[in-house]
Amino acid sequence: MRTIDWNDGAVVIVDQTALPHEVRHVHLTDVDGLVNAIQRLAVRGAPALGAAGALGVVLALDEARRASWDDRELDAAIAGLRAARPTAVNLARGVARSVAAIPEGRDAVLATALALLDEDVAANRAMGGRGADLLRELCPHTEAAGLRLHTHCNTGSLACVEWGTALGVVRCLHERGGVALVYADETRPLLQGTRLTAWELQEMGVDYRVVVDGAGPSLIARGEVDAVVVGADRVVANGDVANKIGTYPLALAAQRAGVPFVVVAPESTVDLGTPDGAAIEIEDRDGDEVLAIADVRLAPPGARAVNPAFDVTPADLVTALVTEDRVVRLAAGQRP
Amino acid sequence: MRTIDWNDGAVVIVDQTALPHEVRHVHLTDVDGLVNAIQRLAVRGAPALGAAGALGVVLALDEARRASWDDRELDAAIAGLRAARPTAVNLARGVARSVAAIPEGRDAVLATALALLDEDVAANRAMGGRGADLLRELCPHTEAAGLRLHTHCNTGSLACVEWGTALGVVRCLHERGGVALVYADETRPLLQGTRLTAWELQEMGVDYRVVVDGAGPSLIARGEVDAVVVGADRVVANGDVANKIGTYPLALAAQRAGVPFVVVAPESTVDLGTPDGAAIEIEDRDGDEVLAIADVRLAPPGARAVNPAFDVTPADLVTALVTEDRVVRLAAGQRP
Repeated sequence: MRTIDWNDGAVVIVDQTALPHEVRHVHLTDVDGLVNAIQRLAVRGAPALGAAGALGVVLALDEARRASWDDRELDAAIAGLRAARPTAVNLARGVARSVAAIPEGRDAVLATALALLDEDVAANRAMGGRGADLLRELCPHTEAAGLRLHTHCNTGSLACVEWGTALGVVRCLHERGGVALVYADETRPLLQGTRLTAWELQEMGVDYRVVVDGAGPSLIARGEVDAVVVGADRVVANGDVANKIGTYPLALAAQRAGVPFVVVAPESTVDLGTPDGAAIEIEDRDGDEVLAIADVRLAPPGARAVNPAFDVTPADLVTALVTEDRVVRLAAGQRP
Repeated sequence: MRTIDWNDGAVVIVDQTALPHEVRHVHLTDVDGLVNAIQRLAVRGAPALGAAGALGVVLALDEARRASWDDRELDAAIAGLRAARPTAVNLARGVARSVAAIPEGRDAVLATALALLDEDVAANRAMGGRGADLLRELCPHTEAAGLRLHTHCNTGSLACVEWGTALGVVRCLHERGGVALVYADETRPLLQGTRLTAWELQEMGVDYRVVVDGAGPSLIARGEVDAVVVGADRVVANGDVANKIGTYPLALAAQRAGVPFVVVAPESTVDLGTPDGAAIEIEDRDGDEVLAIADVRLAPPGARAVNPAFDVTPADLVTALVTEDRVVRLAAGQRP
């Protein structure tokens, strides 16, 4: 079962807010429902957002026909979908690709969207193999014992259509018997590491430990980690990488410790139209995500939070970017 | 009201696990109860642990008399108190100071312990003033607008007998009208920032925002922070600093951004008997603190966590250590 798919007039997603306690499939038949699912992170992860964008345009066309929308209403619905989350470039890209097929008719748009899903799966497999090869090359001393990897957020099958990006590399390496241990950051505020990555690693049979986000840098400094492997929401022209908040400190620690820091993301995440990290729009989410957990209020009444959802890791801290097509040695000066 | 004090045969603490929802005073009349309070972090913070250690010896003497302990039983109780938490040196120091007074009798021990509490308060005031002066010196451009500070964990009156160390500096600076904003890391897993620092800053009337621990480094990189100010649980001979897990990433980010990173701690935290950070025992706490919050299980069944309570920041990342007696420019090569 794919994390996001099309079935009988609906976008079907695995609701990631219900995991790890329940694998709940949600059928979405209108654009508002999909936008809501994106904003509450029921569907999340840059590649999965690309698929959601592409399939969402089909929903919009079907809804336009049912509700007799005029062109302006259709355009507004598509614009709302495109803007549902600003930082990952994949969402807007997925929308754009389906929109380009609209002149060929609704079925052509659906075919285009489904092709994007298939390509995502194939790209994930290619990234997985290439990333696993790279990690073995970067960490030759781990040949016998296997690698001790550190990851952040969730970049597994749940973040994609299936398989995964950074966690897809772990999956490939694990199939080759090359993973000793994975440290998974819990990834506050929404705990994608504790809820989703732990669940996927357990399903894979990989030995892992969850750690608080503040612990990663000192684990790296203490020599407990052979390589850091993370995903990306946007990689821009100068090689700067936007990814889930809490990624940048791992890169700082990896550089100081001389540990490889590897970013794994599909080509659809590369955005050459944005010059550098400073030009990336960082989504600010509701502070209540920080001040409460699982509906339990943690902070005193009146407390306020800021909640940036992403950070930017400068290119000079990124040993390599792995895509389905290539390895780009960013810290060595190569550019995407 | 002090965070920890002696009253009529009991150690009285403000139970920090009940904050911010309730200010609950707990009267502890035996050593086991005090050890339990220390281990569940009802009393916490390096200076407060020093006070707890000193007062705890009085509890042990009183209990020995009530229960007719022999010397071996008394020694065992005191050893258990000393070892209740290993990383902060202050606990063992507080115990040692009271133990040294035992030959002079129980009342002399109590007087010794109460003197330690008074000295802690005086030391906090001195650190506050010196730290505030230093921050103004290090950030001359903030003269008009006030400083935007970043802090971690809780180093306020709740971590001490009263007033605070790093947060005591904030308090002093705020009294001079010099604080624009404080970013308070939530400080997972036990959320001392969200629960305690937010509560103290609110009581002080300081404008603040809680952020997840992963967000600090990118806020610093984005120019949102003028200086980082934190406490310490142990400062060793080469100047390395052990502090709450999640401190080290702030130091890495501060160095890269050219932002001052200031550690504020009493002389009792300086441990010249330990050569460097690698020799500091780091307390590993129960992984369930990471896998659940407020009794809500977050992780899938079977998940495992590692939970180091502290990290070590190397001396070269520490702009200055501020104590009640001096400013030590660690990054510039001075040694404590």
